[in-house]
Amino acid sequence: MHITDDNIQQMDQRYRAQLINSLGGFKSLVMLGTQNLQGDTNLAVFSSFFHIGASPALCGVIVRPDNGERHTLNNIIATGSYTINHVHEAIYQQAHQTSASYPAERSEFSATGLTEEWLNGFFAPFVRESRVKLALQFAERVDLQINGTILLIGKIVEAYVPDEVINPDGFIDLEAAGTMTLSGLDSYHHTQKIARLSYAKPDQPLKIIP
Amino acid sequence: MHITDDNIQQMDQRYRAQLINSLGGFKSLVMLGTQNLQGDTNLAVFSSFFHIGASPALCGVIVRPDNGERHTLNNIIATGSYTINHVHEAIYQQAHQTSASYPAERSEFSATGLTEEWLNGFFAPFVRESRVKLALQFAERVDLQINGTILLIGKIVEAYVPDEVINPDGFIDLEAAGTMTLSGLDSYHHTQKIARLSYAKPDQPLKIIP
Repeated sequence: MHITDDNIQQMDQRYRAQLINSLGGFKSLVMLGTQNLQGDTNLAVFSSFFHIGASPALCGVIVRPDNGERHTLNNIIATGSYTINHVHEAIYQQAHQTSASYPAERSEFSATGLTEEWLNGFFAPFVRESRVKLALQFAERVDLQINGTILLIGKIVEAYVPDEVINPDGFIDLEAAGTMTLSGLDSYHHTQKIARLSYAKPDQPLKIIP
Repeated sequence: MHITDDNIQQMDQRYRAQLINSLGGFKSLVMLGTQNLQGDTNLAVFSSFFHIGASPALCGVIVRPDNGERHTLNNIIATGSYTINHVHEAIYQQAHQTSASYPAERSEFSATGLTEEWLNGFFAPFVRESRVKLALQFAERVDLQINGTILLIGKIVEAYVPDEVINPDGFIDLEAAGTMTLSGLDSYHHTQKIARLSYAKPDQPLKIIP
């Protein structure tokens, strides 16, 4: 099927949202935890979390200010702190439910039955049920004029990872941790590893990393 | 295991790259095809492709100007055109091999055995072997001062998708198309669908979309 720019513009809005959100491939699936200065907590599922650099350890996320994501945005700007929490099969329905439009004074933690966890004095709440959790410090806000979304860049300042999923070379076996991936707006998937491949060099055969 | 900011800074560089690249979760896995004004083609694997908006249909990718990715960057800036090509099991080793440092005059297509495909007069080459392919028009460059990387934003102007993987509501069944996902720097995975979930509303049970 050949889809053109004209086709895309003429699509029904919901159909287009499903289609365009599918085209980029599988996505990171995380819950972003924050707290405002009044002590209200917020938890929101995101699928646009991505790596920007390893040193310093920077990640980005795209935030839409015109919907429920504005609570997350406001809390990060006001407090500078947020957590990233991976999603596994026992909690993926609760992760999805955090995308419902709750009022600011109603925490998605209590609404979905996930548990706030406070670790090492960090200001933002972690999700106790998650197996891989990061503490991030807000680093930079970039307003994308092109469509009014906002790129929030943060620095990873702490990570909590089960010992047994960290390989000797630093690779984290997310599949062993049960971390899931998302496609489109609402499709949740496990993964099945095919192989790790060695660093690629011209005219040298790749090796499989055991 | 609790990893702190100090731990991250003191890690061996390769260990840190593996670890930090793993922490964000599973990633989009695509090959980005370009051509320069002299007619040399380039193909490069990327794992930082992400959705920015559906209307207009915008996607972003983070480019590092200090390595092989500069060919991709220069070609996009000079010509305004690039393609995104999904990766499935029959071509994932070739996709990985495109990350080797080939000189500009040597195309990763011929070096890896993937086939250039020219569709509908678009200036940049597609990968014939890929099953899901997008044509993108360069829209905006954002230099991220924080670490010298560049966010390239593009608009999807055409898409080629097998008929049989498009659901009636616009959702594309990427798993049926064989699209793979990446974790860390070098770990390739299939997916296994758990469920699609209905649009979340406060205090309403989620339904599974058949």
